[in-house]
Amino acid sequence: MNETSFLREIKEIDMLNQSLGLLEWDGQTGMPEASSSFRGDVVGYLNKLAFEKSTGPVIQEAVTYFSEHPDELSEVGGEVFREVKEEYERNHSIAPERMEAYHGEISKAHTAWLNARAKKDFTEMKQSIGDLIAFLKEFIPHWQKEEKTAYDVLLNQYEPGLTVEKLDQLFSELKTGIMSIRKEIAEKGTVPRTDFLSRHVSKEQQKRFVMDVAQQLGYDFSKGRLDDTVHPFMLDLNRNDARITTRWDEANFSMAVFGVIHEAGHGIYEQNIDPKYDYTPLSTGASMGIHESQSLFNEIILGSNRNFWKKQYPLFQKYTEGTFDDIDFDTFYRGLKETKASLIRIEADSLTYPLHIIIRYEIEKMIFNEEAALEELPKIWADKYEEYLGIRPENDLEGILQDVHWSGGSFGYFPSYALGYMYAAQLCHTLEQDVKLNDVLLSDNYAPIYNWMTEKIHRFGASKKPNELIVNATGEELSPSYLIDYMKAVYFDVYQIEATDK
Amino acid sequence: MNETSFLREIKEIDMLNQSLGLLEWDGQTGMPEASSSFRGDVVGYLNKLAFEKSTGPVIQEAVTYFSEHPDELSEVGGEVFREVKEEYERNHSIAPERMEAYHGEISKAHTAWLNARAKKDFTEMKQSIGDLIAFLKEFIPHWQKEEKTAYDVLLNQYEPGLTVEKLDQLFSELKTGIMSIRKEIAEKGTVPRTDFLSRHVSKEQQKRFVMDVAQQLGYDFSKGRLDDTVHPFMLDLNRNDARITTRWDEANFSMAVFGVIHEAGHGIYEQNIDPKYDYTPLSTGASMGIHESQSLFNEIILGSNRNFWKKQYPLFQKYTEGTFDDIDFDTFYRGLKETKASLIRIEADSLTYPLHIIIRYEIEKMIFNEEAALEELPKIWADKYEEYLGIRPENDLEGILQDVHWSGGSFGYFPSYALGYMYAAQLCHTLEQDVKLNDVLLSDNYAPIYNWMTEKIHRFGASKKPNELIVNATGEELSPSYLIDYMKAVYFDVYQIEATDK
Repeated sequence: MNETSFLREIKEIDMLNQSLGLLEWDGQTGMPEASSSFRGDVVGYLNKLAFEKSTGPVIQEAVTYFSEHPDELSEVGGEVFREVKEEYERNHSIAPERMEAYHGEISKAHTAWLNARAKKDFTEMKQSIGDLIAFLKEFIPHWQKEEKTAYDVLLNQYEPGLTVEKLDQLFSELKTGIMSIRKEIAEKGTVPRTDFLSRHVSKEQQKRFVMDVAQQLGYDFSKGRLDDTVHPFMLDLNRNDARITTRWDEANFSMAVFGVIHEAGHGIYEQNIDPKYDYTPLSTGASMGIHESQSLFNEIILGSNRNFWKKQYPLFQKYTEGTFDDIDFDTFYRGLKETKASLIRIEADSLTYPLHIIIRYEIEKMIFNEEAALEELPKIWADKYEEYLGIRPENDLEGILQDVHWSGGSFGYFPSYALGYMYAAQLCHTLEQDVKLNDVLLSDNYAPIYNWMTEKIHRFGASKKPNELIVNATGEELSPSYLIDYMKAVYFDVYQIEATDK
Repeated sequence: MNETSFLREIKEIDMLNQSLGLLEWDGQTGMPEASSSFRGDVVGYLNKLAFEKSTGPVIQEAVTYFSEHPDELSEVGGEVFREVKEEYERNHSIAPERMEAYHGEISKAHTAWLNARAKKDFTEMKQSIGDLIAFLKEFIPHWQKEEKTAYDVLLNQYEPGLTVEKLDQLFSELKTGIMSIRKEIAEKGTVPRTDFLSRHVSKEQQKRFVMDVAQQLGYDFSKGRLDDTVHPFMLDLNRNDARITTRWDEANFSMAVFGVIHEAGHGIYEQNIDPKYDYTPLSTGASMGIHESQSLFNEIILGSNRNFWKKQYPLFQKYTEGTFDDIDFDTFYRGLKETKASLIRIEADSLTYPLHIIIRYEIEKMIFNEEAALEELPKIWADKYEEYLGIRPENDLEGILQDVHWSGGSFGYFPSYALGYMYAAQLCHTLEQDVKLNDVLLSDNYAPIYNWMTEKIHRFGASKKPNELIVNATGEELSPSYLIDYMKAVYFDVYQIEATDK
């Protein structure tokens, strides 16, 4: 065994994953409907090939050999080896046929999800979701190391090192903070005007504007593209091919505007990973939470900043060809940042958004702690929305069917979104010590911002753990206080609440 | 060895090919430019996997075993086996690494072709093309069976059973026929009015019209899609996913109109192959020539028919919202069918088109008979255009760089287009004995036409050889006379030459 053979095997696995990435992107952007059963087979097969390799003889031998001869690896080789060994230890006892069957089931579940959405009825996908959960419960004992509960195991997959115990604490503090801001706003806030947000803006006008903004923020269209989909996502095949997607509503431009800014943040991350990690599992984000910190830094931190919009609003007015001539900047900005309980997560404002995540987190814990049957979930979901946000979905489409994640087997993923919020606010707090953020946002060149982020986060890819990245970048562990402070500053300004009330 | 194991291996090869199909489609429709070197690696690797399997131990064993025990195969299994064995015998002596290197080179050559086009200079891709030709010359001895010359070997890949000797004869007769029609037209024809062909028709208007027409012709959009590209093609991943592409010119609507009708013909073929051939190499067209017979039957046979346009012209007028209100049907139809020497093959009219093919055929023969050096090709190309069509390209972009085929390694492919013309006319001649073509074309339902074609051609996939299909369908071997007669009928009508001159 030598490093070259090891890295060649890793490259082949990566190339299978790049193929799978394209099959996935295509499946969600424009694959002919009738092709889905063929696609399920193909994806299942390639996943099996990749999985077999990741637990196959070459990797087995490499794990044994380099555990004993770590000095024979280069620096990058050593970083890759650490990651590969972890993954190997997680997966080598799962039979490839079971993993293939699981991936085939994911493909079917996606179709079931689309059908269920069409019928607004969770029952249509209950079977598929149940089958996916059964697979996960079968795999969890193989994945489990020190984690206490089944759900801890799932959390740990998306955010290495995270536990239910720690997350309960973070979410409790965050929830209290948000509830208190919501109370202040309800009692003392001046509600902004928002009628103009539903003015007709054509898809083409929106597209021209958001592509311009995405480029300013650092997204490189020669290394990516923008497509239409049902549930927006970013998908990277490699650092030169990080694709973003969105959906459009001509009577609600802010959805795609913030959506594309968000996905562009994910894309910028992938596009700026150090080329030395090409064709390795380190050429991706450090975790889902860190990934979300990048998308949300763009969407919520920059996208909530007055100066960002002072620069962008004239551009928006130009692209929308007079539609907003009668709306002054302050009215526009305050309208954009309205907060209002909503049923759909991806349409939620940045204050109530974490509550959507906390609801999903609580339900996922119930599923894996065997505290709820699948048929009860739509009601549990609706009850929680009523309790936390004061509104109740009228059907499953605006309730439990709204998100793609579960039909993709991604349980334990949702908390990443809220972690990303908190990471983003904490990163911004540090960034402001190095970069005059409010000045830069008024300028024609946002490079000081995205270059800072590349220096502190992007370039490392997955070579560092989330906690290590955040401590190195900000000097301390994750704390919800920066996000709560940021929310207060933004929303008290928008709702014209005196600073002394803070 | 049993049939199930054999067909499982064949299915895995097919699934790798479906993945490669998607990578190829994406590479030509919208892949970010910067991704091309990653893509080259990925395509090279998957091709290597597929190639290794197609010559690997399972197939080796199957070839040996079932050659001795053909009775242990089902009917479909036997048909698949015949094809697989042929392919195996063609390829098993080529080292997988060489095949991988070849596919990697194809990927680079595509980029070189795009660069050369941008600079209008063949020199930019000379090196790449030379490398591809060297690969082919290396492979030809492995492929050769009874074929007389190197170029016979290449021809036979795309049209099993075809020889230079036979093709020289067919092309000679065809060329004489076309030259004679061109002479009559030049001497006695009344040139149709064509100024209106350059009227502005927006991409969206064109797209709505051609998608409607493609559907009428039998193309099923739930099993396909239409995208933009540089050089239009149809690519099928499976019978439920047969994608077509086009390019648009708002000052020349007929390009995309006939282009989409053409590609839809390819797509209809793939969409109607018998499902019993799913996941096997028989789930595709019988040959490139037969494939072209289907696209050209739509484009040239139906698309040259007066009654087809009597039905479609009002629809075209509707979609183009008044742009052609002053153009009567006869003027429109005659204008569409103008014949005029042109430099660009895919813009050529249906009378001069085969001359473009004959030129490429003659040059390809020269390359593989070592009768021309690469640097001479642009001049040879230009000289031949001057001799056959009376016009000369001003640069390589409108000359030798116009087609994608060579940069894809497809030498020996071009003749298929002209074979397809001849097959299409011969098929039409027989179809008219069963279907009242001119009545059906005026009706709202074209099913009698495409159902006839499914019955005679589509459903068989690649389970029959081209010659067998044509003889079964039409009762005789391929003859150029039906095409020459059809051309006379169409062009003498359009150019208002008396029937007695025929």
